[in-house]
Amino acid sequence: MIIDAHAHTNGGNLGNFKAGLLASRGYHGGHYQENEEALTRAINHHKTTILDAVGTDIQFVSPRPFQLMHSEKPAKIVDWYARASNDVNALTAKIEPQRYRAVACLPQSPEIPVKEWCAELERCVNELGMIGLMINPDPTEAGNEYYPGMGEEHWYPLYEKMVQLDVPALIHSATTINPWDYYQNYFITTETSCILQMVEKRVSNTFPNLKIIVSHGGGSIPYQIGRWRSNFGRMMGLDFDEELSKFYFDTGLYNVESLELLFKIVGTDRCMFGTENPGTGSYRWPKTGKMLDDTKPLIESISWLSEQDKKNIFEDVAKKVFTRFRA
Amino acid sequence: MIIDAHAHTNGGNLGNFKAGLLASRGYHGGHYQENEEALTRAINHHKTTILDAVGTDIQFVSPRPFQLMHSEKPAKIVDWYARASNDVNALTAKIEPQRYRAVACLPQSPEIPVKEWCAELERCVNELGMIGLMINPDPTEAGNEYYPGMGEEHWYPLYEKMVQLDVPALIHSATTINPWDYYQNYFITTETSCILQMVEKRVSNTFPNLKIIVSHGGGSIPYQIGRWRSNFGRMMGLDFDEELSKFYFDTGLYNVESLELLFKIVGTDRCMFGTENPGTGSYRWPKTGKMLDDTKPLIESISWLSEQDKKNIFEDVAKKVFTRFRA
Amino acid sequence: MIIDAHAHTNGGNLGNFKAGLLASRGYHGGHYQENEEALTRAINHHKTTILDAVGTDIQFVSPRPFQLMHSEKPAKIVDWYARASNDVNALTAKIEPQRYRAVACLPQSPEIPVKEWCAELERCVNELGMIGLMINPDPTEAGNEYYPGMGEEHWYPLYEKMVQLDVPALIHSATTINPWDYYQNYFITTETSCILQMVEKRVSNTFPNLKIIVSHGGGSIPYQIGRWRSNFGRMMGLDFDEELSKFYFDTGLYNVESLELLFKIVGTDRCMFGTENPGTGSYRWPKTGKMLDDTKPLIESISWLSEQDKKNIFEDVAKKVFTRFRA
Amino acid sequence: MIIDAHAHTNGGNLGNFKAGLLASRGYHGGHYQENEEALTRAINHHKTTILDAVGTDIQFVSPRPFQLMHSEKPAKIVDWYARASNDVNALTAKIEPQRYRAVACLPQSPEIPVKEWCAELERCVNELGMIGLMINPDPTEAGNEYYPGMGEEHWYPLYEKMVQLDVPALIHSATTINPWDYYQNYFITTETSCILQMVEKRVSNTFPNLKIIVSHGGGSIPYQIGRWRSNFGRMMGLDFDEELSKFYFDTGLYNVESLELLFKIVGTDRCMFGTENPGTGSYRWPKTGKMLDDTKPLIESISWLSEQDKKNIFEDVAKKVFTRFRA
Amino acid sequence: MIIDAHAHTNGGNLGNFKAGLLASRGYHGGHYQENEEALTRAINHHKTTILDAVGTDIQFVSPRPFQLMHSEKPAKIVDWYARASNDVNALTAKIEPQRYRAVACLPQSPEIPVKEWCAELERCVNELGMIGLMINPDPTEAGNEYYPGMGEEHWYPLYEKMVQLDVPALIHSATTINPWDYYQNYFITTETSCILQMVEKRVSNTFPNLKIIVSHGGGSIPYQIGRWRSNFGRMMGLDFDEELSKFYFDTGLYNVESLELLFKIVGTDRCMFGTENPGTGSYRWPKTGKMLDDTKPLIESISWLSEQDKKNIFEDVAKKVFTRFRA
Amino acid sequence: MIIDAHAHTNGGNLGNFKAGLLASRGYHGGHYQENEEALTRAINHHKTTILDAVGTDIQFVSPRPFQLMHSEKPAKIVDWYARASNDVNALTAKIEPQRYRAVACLPQSPEIPVKEWCAELERCVNELGMIGLMINPDPTEAGNEYYPGMGEEHWYPLYEKMVQLDVPALIHSATTINPWDYYQNYFITTETSCILQMVEKRVSNTFPNLKIIVSHGGGSIPYQIGRWRSNFGRMMGLDFDEELSKFYFDTGLYNVESLELLFKIVGTDRCMFGTENPGTGSYRWPKTGKMLDDTKPLIESISWLSEQDKKNIFEDVAKKVFTRFRA
Repeated sequence: MIIDAHAHTNGGNLGNFKAGLLASRGYHGGHYQENEEALTRAINHHKTTILDAVGTDIQFVSPRPFQLMHSEKPAKIVDWYARASNDVNALTAKIEPQRYRAVACLPQSPEIPVKEWCAELERCVNELGMIGLMINPDPTEAGNEYYPGMGEEHWYPLYEKMVQLDVPALIHSATTINPWDYYQNYFITTETSCILQMVEKRVSNTFPNLKIIVSHGGGSIPYQIGRWRSNFGRMMGLDFDEELSKFYFDTGLYNVESLELLFKIVGTDRCMFGTENPGTGSYRWPKTGKMLDDTKPLIESISWLSEQDKKNIFEDVAKKVFTRFRA
Repeated sequence: MIIDAHAHTNGGNLGNFKAGLLASRGYHGGHYQENEEALTRAINHHKTTILDAVGTDIQFVSPRPFQLMHSEKPAKIVDWYARASNDVNALTAKIEPQRYRAVACLPQSPEIPVKEWCAELERCVNELGMIGLMINPDPTEAGNEYYPGMGEEHWYPLYEKMVQLDVPALIHSATTINPWDYYQNYFITTETSCILQMVEKRVSNTFPNLKIIVSHGGGSIPYQIGRWRSNFGRMMGLDFDEELSKFYFDTGLYNVESLELLFKIVGTDRCMFGTENPGTGSYRWPKTGKMLDDTKPLIESISWLSEQDKKNIFEDVAKKVFTRFRA
Repeated sequence: MIIDAHAHTNGGNLGNFKAGLLASRGYHGGHYQENEEALTRAINHHKTTILDAVGTDIQFVSPRPFQLMHSEKPAKIVDWYARASNDVNALTAKIEPQRYRAVACLPQSPEIPVKEWCAELERCVNELGMIGLMINPDPTEAGNEYYPGMGEEHWYPLYEKMVQLDVPALIHSATTINPWDYYQNYFITTETSCILQMVEKRVSNTFPNLKIIVSHGGGSIPYQIGRWRSNFGRMMGLDFDEELSKFYFDTGLYNVESLELLFKIVGTDRCMFGTENPGTGSYRWPKTGKMLDDTKPLIESISWLSEQDKKNIFEDVAKKVFTRFRA
Repeated sequence: MIIDAHAHTNGGNLGNFKAGLLASRGYHGGHYQENEEALTRAINHHKTTILDAVGTDIQFVSPRPFQLMHSEKPAKIVDWYARASNDVNALTAKIEPQRYRAVACLPQSPEIPVKEWCAELERCVNELGMIGLMINPDPTEAGNEYYPGMGEEHWYPLYEKMVQLDVPALIHSATTINPWDYYQNYFITTETSCILQMVEKRVSNTFPNLKIIVSHGGGSIPYQIGRWRSNFGRMMGLDFDEELSKFYFDTGLYNVESLELLFKIVGTDRCMFGTENPGTGSYRWPKTGKMLDDTKPLIESISWLSEQDKKNIFEDVAKKVFTRFRA
Repeated sequence: MIIDAHAHTNGGNLGNFKAGLLASRGYHGGHYQENEEALTRAINHHKTTILDAVGTDIQFVSPRPFQLMHSEKPAKIVDWYARASNDVNALTAKIEPQRYRAVACLPQSPEIPVKEWCAELERCVNELGMIGLMINPDPTEAGNEYYPGMGEEHWYPLYEKMVQLDVPALIHSATTINPWDYYQNYFITTETSCILQMVEKRVSNTFPNLKIIVSHGGGSIPYQIGRWRSNFGRMMGLDFDEELSKFYFDTGLYNVESLELLFKIVGTDRCMFGTENPGTGSYRWPKTGKMLDDTKPLIESISWLSEQDKKNIFEDVAKKVFTRFRA
Repeated sequence: MIIDAHAHTNGGNLGNFKAGLLASRGYHGGHYQENEEALTRAINHHKTTILDAVGTDIQFVSPRPFQLMHSEKPAKIVDWYARASNDVNALTAKIEPQRYRAVACLPQSPEIPVKEWCAELERCVNELGMIGLMINPDPTEAGNEYYPGMGEEHWYPLYEKMVQLDVPALIHSATTINPWDYYQNYFITTETSCILQMVEKRVSNTFPNLKIIVSHGGGSIPYQIGRWRSNFGRMMGLDFDEELSKFYFDTGLYNVESLELLFKIVGTDRCMFGTENPGTGSYRWPKTGKMLDDTKPLIESISWLSEQDKKNIFEDVAKKVFTRFRA
């Protein structure tokens, strides 16, 4: 069974809904009306052209992260957009339960206390049957206000709720509003920061059962692991490799050399297949003539991986982590 | 010959000088007086305990980047500190010319126009005999003001001067004042941004002879290369690998798997040995009992590298890029 | 002939385009692709259900103002969205030239100089055949930065271009980002300010041929005319009624008493029929069972208006002002 | 009996007091000393030249609103100026009780909690015999900080005190410090916002006995009523006319057409005569040769008003609302 | 002859004018109308009760500095208030030319370029016959924006005009808006800074004929002279006493010990009698039963001063510096 | 016995420690390691060349105030630097107990509550044997944020702890980050403000036993005493001289005339010898050929001081105030 643990919404009319929320700043209220028929058409098309084409059995779909506009005001439009986004995915999983499961986003406005994000998480898990959530480490979207890092106690109410509901979180930031940067790179920056912040503040001591999946192969951490072995060792006496082994990672990388590095550094028992397809990697690379985000063949081609290694990646780790997933 | 192209100042009394500049905000003027005798002692100690110990023949030393305080005000203290920092390294190379060459820093205050940075570069190259420079991509040190990215024409006066003087630049940021982040990670972030910004704006079209060396193995770029192949291909029709081949990289990584990835992705003809020793990687790792920044053995151990590959890394690329270096 | 001079875009896929621009902050470029077939369907539906239903012969359609996001950054996404918005309306007028004419919006980012807005105006008029434009008096959308009022010379490059091209401007702000206010009220506020600012600074002295149409019956000006008669008379010796007679007004009010006040205060030779249908007034009012924005019957019911008065309102004034309109 | 419910302080030495408070930022303390003799002279002059000249029997005088400087710091100077302003009016009513009653202002510094404003209200009503108060909907005077709208619970302590004391409030803002705007227009803007904010948040549900008098004929609301019928109907299912009937209005308009609109829209049983004389409308209009703020003849000239309608306007509504007024 | 070189406006109706400018933010225009009769009464009263009472022959009157509101916006109200303030003093000198001369203030808004301040200086000197001016070293009134210190070239246009017109400047700041401080102390702070800034930047080298009179005995400089002798000597090789001898000082101190220190440190040939009477020192001190600002007897009581010393202080220095003064 | 009550740290490696804290923003932790041998050498040198040379028996040494960087972030680096600074002085007093006693600094970050500063005070007094502390009246270092003045209750937790421990405080600010000013002058400014703030708010009523020593002869207060006699007398009915007699002063002035003024105004029973040697006054003045901060001879030369006066200054007052000092 091939589980793609990192995929985002397809179809739905969320773009128009978001444009209206921003234009009206919430004056029209937050009611979102999906066109179920149109969504069903989109899902069918997606199922065939994407999932079947690359041999994926099931995708865990979360909202498009770069659309989540966590830093926008008033906070209520962030909340409404999050709820609508979750509704679209819940409907997707309901329409085609064999091929999709939904992963929640939260109304992560910096003006909404973390505790209040949890209501939406509970709704998604308990009422809509979702199996996990997505966390944006920087709700300011790189705005000028400082937001507590993911190691701070500020985040503990969410971690408590995650442990209580037994759901894992995919680390994936929204956009960046800093003109110096690109959202495509801010994903990498924030995934990296998430790990450093949580290790430094020893969050795992307080929440040993917290399940964190760092997207895109863990940002820059596996590649730059040497400097963290040194820094955390010298300054805190920490074994960084041991700390890293408490996180999970998806395989959202699009070349075999980097995938190999990931598996070597963190081990296949912490990795799960994830493609973000269609998305960042959806480009037919002239050098190979193939879609960059069709990475299953790349993984299968790594000769030093055992069959169990591959099963870990494609199926077992996801099943172990997403305990609420029933095939 | 083993050339270590990435190393920073040792010895000198710059800490006290900096503390005084910040405390007085420049009221005492900018005169820096080095104690040549003490510096000579420090250099001798360093030469023996560091260079000889790991088999390095010569280091290219630049100022300690995280000390450069580019965002401090008034701008004159940034300028004075930069000049004093360069003087210390010039003196180091003068005291022990067989083992050290100096690489300049610039007075990169956001309040000082780029054109005015060039006077110090000329002084360092023409008067002090330096062979290259260091560039901080974000002179605000992650402050709230936006600074033009390295792809913008804002930076062109510096690029013109670099080409005119035929000197390469090592990309290496100063600290970050953002409490969300760590300076050790901001190095990686800014090295990554430098490449993305310069590729996006096609700086190489205007400055085909510009020589940029990205520290620490190129930030996160080699590991995350897939997403840039896709993004730049899809949006701009660019061959990202070709663009990347216009940059140089140092080997400032501290584990063999990442070094292998670097060499595979960018090729040994774009890589030069660099350790930042003593510095970030100066930690005796319990798992091996060895210093993490003693990376020469790691590189030598990579079986698939040819002798020429290794000579590229340890000597030839540095000599080719630092044309002003005469052994 | 019934001309509705105040109407906005229907159909098009601009919501998704805008959501993408904001999420990516322009990283994906500004290419907008309209689905002409879908647009044609939407227009046909609109033509029948809206125009035919209320007896309107032709609508002058401009973009939805509250969507224009003039205050967003970077400025290029404001520009791209304006261009796409104009393209949709140009296509609308091309598909159904008997029933629609297009009115341009401009890329009114506060970071883009007024002079540069004019390029888009020229494109719309000279290349796309548009007959007028829309002006947002406050490009900051009530943000914290001060923007020069419409009486300031800052705006003169636009006024010069308008006179040169002989096109009138409909005054209509975008949204407000001030949480204290509502965009529906900010329209009224800015229409009011536009008149006060232009009168105070005597813009008509410099641009006697400038044609300004103030939406929604002139904001609060006709109702509050007494205080302006007094203020401008006492402080500047101005005859405010005379100044007011240099502006045009649309009939974007939804009750007969207010329409009567408008006609009494400014005269029917300065008024043109405008409904914003579908839009603000599209509500079936329980007290009458009729759509509030179906105002043609209201105007027709005013017994003291002559036939010529009504022809002024429904046809003649619009034809006189929009000289580029050929039926 | 002709009651003018909207008039402001005449005489007193408050200008010098205010200039001193601002210059010293409160360093000299807040003691204000009125010259009772000079005030008596001013009142006598006013009584004859203003009240008698237009046939007003009694004025309800509140402080000059545009002088109240609510946004100035430190907050204590706002407080002291409010108290002195109230003292002047209390003295006025004491000197000439047949012709004047006093209406309080409050120390509405954004830095002073609403609850603390109420102490001054109690002093004015209970100790100084005042019969109502004035509310500035925007204590920031259009500064950059957001202040809760009048519909928010933030304001409830004041509403509770008003109901408890059974006093009505005249809505009248102070100045605006926004250079884009004029204080004469900000009055209209804030009066409009007050109504919208209180309707949207359904304040009347919680405070059915709260009495709010909106100055200047209700800002732009009666003229623009159509859009609010539509918006509140469509979005909230509200009958806006019914909501509007919970407010009172003064007749601070200076032309007969607008007065007619006001009476038609809200009914004479919600309107009370108010002139702000001398003030905004004090201009001898060349077209008629009469003072614009002499509006009694205008109202009397409206043929479709019954005698009771006129008695409502000139006397009965004011008496009904200002229950503490005893002729 | 007893000349009091430091005194401020008495009488006039500037408080009400200022209150109106701030309330309207300039909307009513800047026309100021003095009541000449009332001013004459005030002057006569002042002449008798103040000048005659303490034996002063003539006062040089400038506007009340703490009222000048240089930091207020828009800049035009600063300008208008400055002009009105000057007009009052010009009228004072015209009404009673034997007892008063006028000293100008300038429209020192930070938003008005220094060059434009000079037009008002020229008007005051050339048209109104004034003999000097007053300078506020900090036009921001201790606001958050940085303003160039008096040593910077920013101020040179004013210095050039002063030299050209041959008029001296009394250094005297306006108020401070910093809640941490008092305006009474900010005078001392800015007088001190003025001297330090001008000495450090060697303004006297460029303007050897510039005449600067530092109020209140030179702030803290004479008392703290030791630290400046040391600092300027050690850092710049300057003889601070020599630099100080290029400034003039008034005797605005209210005790004999401090007056003695002033005369000892700077010499009587740099000092001129100044009382600010009535003003800061107008308090009958219980310990002596005398007014503190009646300082003539204090100076006369200093036994070690020669007759010429006293004549310097009371007459000669003022006559030498205010060359436009003709008795 | 000659006690110098105002002196600062000599020797130690705090400059490098501070530079590192700022560069790393605390990432490396706060461990400070003194080189006791080097410190001993520095102390021996200082003892001979400074203390013996001018005849001082013992110095009370506090940290170099302008280095304390109270406004830097994160707050932990302020804390760490304060602790290290105290450790250096504690070690100094331990190495040479006959010649030095230590006076503490506190971690006065504006982000650290006053109550938390007291833990370090207790450590210094109870564990390290210190005899007093130093207070910076403006922890923002003249930054843009307002900090409560020393008269506010905000400071009371510190005053309570001082009284409880029976230790006096030397008032001495850190640097200023305001480019308009110099730190050398900000000392004077803040010493002045301290007195004014504490007198105005009557702190001595609540803390009659609080012991405050104002550095540098009390800022500008003794010289400008006349204006405060007047202001506090007129506005508050206070006898300023009596209030001033509740403070202590050091003799940190460098000329005999100012020292005489100080003794005349405040009396020798409130003054204690203090030189800040080596420091601000360490300059060999060409006019005398002597060091300016060698002020013992100046004081001894004042003929009108009695032997007891001089003993007060050199010994008795210090012993009385620093009750924890045992010779």
